[in-house]
Amino acid sequence: MYSLTVCDHIMIAHSFRGEEFGPAQKLHGATFAVEAEFRAEKLDHLQLLVDIGLAKVELRRILDTVDYSNLDDNPAFTGINTTTEYMAFHIHSLLAAACRDGRLGAGGQAVGSLKVLIRESPNAWAAYEGAIA
Amino acid sequence: MYSLTVCDHIMIAHSFRGEEFGPAQKLHGATFAVEAEFRAEKLDHLQLLVDIGLAKVELRRILDTVDYSNLDDNPAFTGINTTTEYMAFHIHSLLAAACRDGRLGAGGQAVGSLKVLIRESPNAWAAYEGAIA
Amino acid sequence: MYSLTVCDHIMIAHSFRGEEFGPAQKLHGATFAVEAEFRAEKLDHLQLLVDIGLAKVELRRILDTVDYSNLDDNPAFTGINTTTEYMAFHIHSLLAAACRDGRLGAGGQAVGSLKVLIRESPNAWAAYEGAIA
Amino acid sequence: MYSLTVCDHIMIAHSFRGEEFGPAQKLHGATFAVEAEFRAEKLDHLQLLVDIGLAKVELRRILDTVDYSNLDDNPAFTGINTTTEYMAFHIHSLLAAACRDGRLGAGGQAVGSLKVLIRESPNAWAAYEGAIA
Amino acid sequence: MYSLTVCDHIMIAHSFRGEEFGPAQKLHGATFAVEAEFRAEKLDHLQLLVDIGLAKVELRRILDTVDYSNLDDNPAFTGINTTTEYMAFHIHSLLAAACRDGRLGAGGQAVGSLKVLIRESPNAWAAYEGAIA
Amino acid sequence: MYSLTVCDHIMIAHSFRGEEFGPAQKLHGATFAVEAEFRAEKLDHLQLLVDIGLAKVELRRILDTVDYSNLDDNPAFTGINTTTEYMAFHIHSLLAAACRDGRLGAGGQAVGSLKVLIRESPNAWAAYEGAIA
Repeated sequence: MYSLTVCDHIMIAHSFRGEEFGPAQKLHGATFAVEAEFRAEKLDHLQLLVDIGLAKVELRRILDTVDYSNLDDNPAFTGINTTTEYMAFHIHSLLAAACRDGRLGAGGQAVGSLKVLIRESPNAWAAYEGAIA
Repeated sequence: MYSLTVCDHIMIAHSFRGEEFGPAQKLHGATFAVEAEFRAEKLDHLQLLVDIGLAKVELRRILDTVDYSNLDDNPAFTGINTTTEYMAFHIHSLLAAACRDGRLGAGGQAVGSLKVLIRESPNAWAAYEGAIA
Repeated sequence: MYSLTVCDHIMIAHSFRGEEFGPAQKLHGATFAVEAEFRAEKLDHLQLLVDIGLAKVELRRILDTVDYSNLDDNPAFTGINTTTEYMAFHIHSLLAAACRDGRLGAGGQAVGSLKVLIRESPNAWAAYEGAIA
Repeated sequence: MYSLTVCDHIMIAHSFRGEEFGPAQKLHGATFAVEAEFRAEKLDHLQLLVDIGLAKVELRRILDTVDYSNLDDNPAFTGINTTTEYMAFHIHSLLAAACRDGRLGAGGQAVGSLKVLIRESPNAWAAYEGAIA
Repeated sequence: MYSLTVCDHIMIAHSFRGEEFGPAQKLHGATFAVEAEFRAEKLDHLQLLVDIGLAKVELRRILDTVDYSNLDDNPAFTGINTTTEYMAFHIHSLLAAACRDGRLGAGGQAVGSLKVLIRESPNAWAAYEGAIA
Repeated sequence: MYSLTVCDHIMIAHSFRGEEFGPAQKLHGATFAVEAEFRAEKLDHLQLLVDIGLAKVELRRILDTVDYSNLDDNPAFTGINTTTEYMAFHIHSLLAAACRDGRLGAGGQAVGSLKVLIRESPNAWAAYEGAIA
């Protein structure tokens, strides 16, 4: 099994609903350092898993939909706590769709599974991994 | 599959028995930077895998049983080399029990598997992963 | 010259005023990983620069005044852009005062200068350094 | 499942063939920071997965075959783009053989699978993982 | 004293002349992770040291003159070993000129000194620092 | 001003005397990740600050005098707490002497000052810097 990972980051504001969140119920924010890991059983004829340039562009395009914003104001997250684990799932969904739709070329369509990991601080991170199809 | 990871560290003394260990047969020590990764198929109704506050408290409580000590003097490790890979297993056992016992709340009981990774130096680390049940 | 550095972090929301900030004029947020470096010419009779336990407690106490909050709502920052470089200066001022006031013990009062560095993302950080007195 | 990881690095020159590579078609180079993760179901009687000393020596011996060289001139890579993902596979093959051949001792022969991860820059890396046998 | 640091990286091929270099006399390569630290006594009226967007653009523009290339073929380095310490000086010269020429705005012209640090591997790096003027 | 930094690490046991140390009065241990930064105003005719190979060998030779040992048993530290800041000073003294004695070649003798930084955990480190002469 091969994998290729590219990184980028976003800077967002949000708040959480639920007593479990303690002080994080107040409006606060986070730098989310995002790692997108593409996995495939084979490389193509150029020894590439996916085109790393396309991968970075697509990840950036997806992150731009939430970067520099208050997630509390985003209709996509109505009634949802935008926890790090949930945001990993959200970005995974969009990036998996980009693979399926051919935005990462033939290599992206050959990707079997995808893992999105988000570092929220030096000592906490969350991830979502799952099949592309 | 979702995952959530929290980190902490301990500073311990120990020595190893067996010629294979060379100079590490002498009493020496290590900073063990510990990463505990909780894995589950689903998030709860608040979009949480486990309560990160509880996870940090339980990991700290477990690490306190060995932090700032000489592992050679600990009856739990009689006749056992406290290698990094073994200590990952040891902490895994205690943290898995904490999940089963409800110390990490309902989220902890829904955790499917757990991975404990310990970094012993900038260029060596070990881990143990396994089911909670 | 000796130095001792301790780290912690905060998660804040804020926005900036000024066209130069582009998309960062919108409400967004950041994880600020804070490094506080204490400098002194000598160690004390116990070979300590400052008591690392006290240093961590004081840094945490200061960070608690802004952690999990929207800096735009904080009267301390009225008319001020809470840039990373400015926040380094702000935390420096509070931590220098804690040293002068004896909150870090005799070691803290012997500190000659202090540097506060804040990492806002994997590829950008800012700092402020200056004398304690 | 236990794992043990050791790290080292190489500094190589190379170029890529294929329009997809853009400016990387020109002769350039990279520092490849290599992480070799050995996995096994059990530890031996000394609580070791593999002898970490042997593991470092074998990884170094393998890396020496390509370190400080121009990969374009290496007959092993004729007609092959030495992408990061391919080089992870290449090093995996050699290190898996070293395990099978007993170069890492009995521990190495008990290794079930191996993952080789190569960091090519602060924000991109690739890996290959597979069974030893 | 305030400072602001931005990062980027390049991937280059080169070789060294001189027996002291041992195997590095052969054509090889490196990923140079570059950190540019701008220093100033004051922030501007917006609480900025330099416009971080401009700083990243100028650093990138300068790095593009050597990225994805064989430094041995670059007339700028005839008769010069492109060691990490020398490349830090080279990039420092170009970035200092960019500050003086106003490419980083008024903030850049108020920069007092600049440090360029290049990480060549996980355990070696070099830097050059000096006044802008 | 140029600088060149090389890294290595040691794994030691020790204990501290003084109530201020709390639980660290018990025998425990640490991984000390050591960074040695050499500073000089000029590079030599090969564009080198110091021979990086010699620097690594000398740092290793010095670290070997304390690696894999219990510092409490070392006569060099009788009556001294081997705090991270003190150990930075200790290693600085030995490495500065190595420079003066010509063990790092002519480059080492041209070094003006030296900084030794020791990371004891992911969130605490200490350093000593001073002139070579």
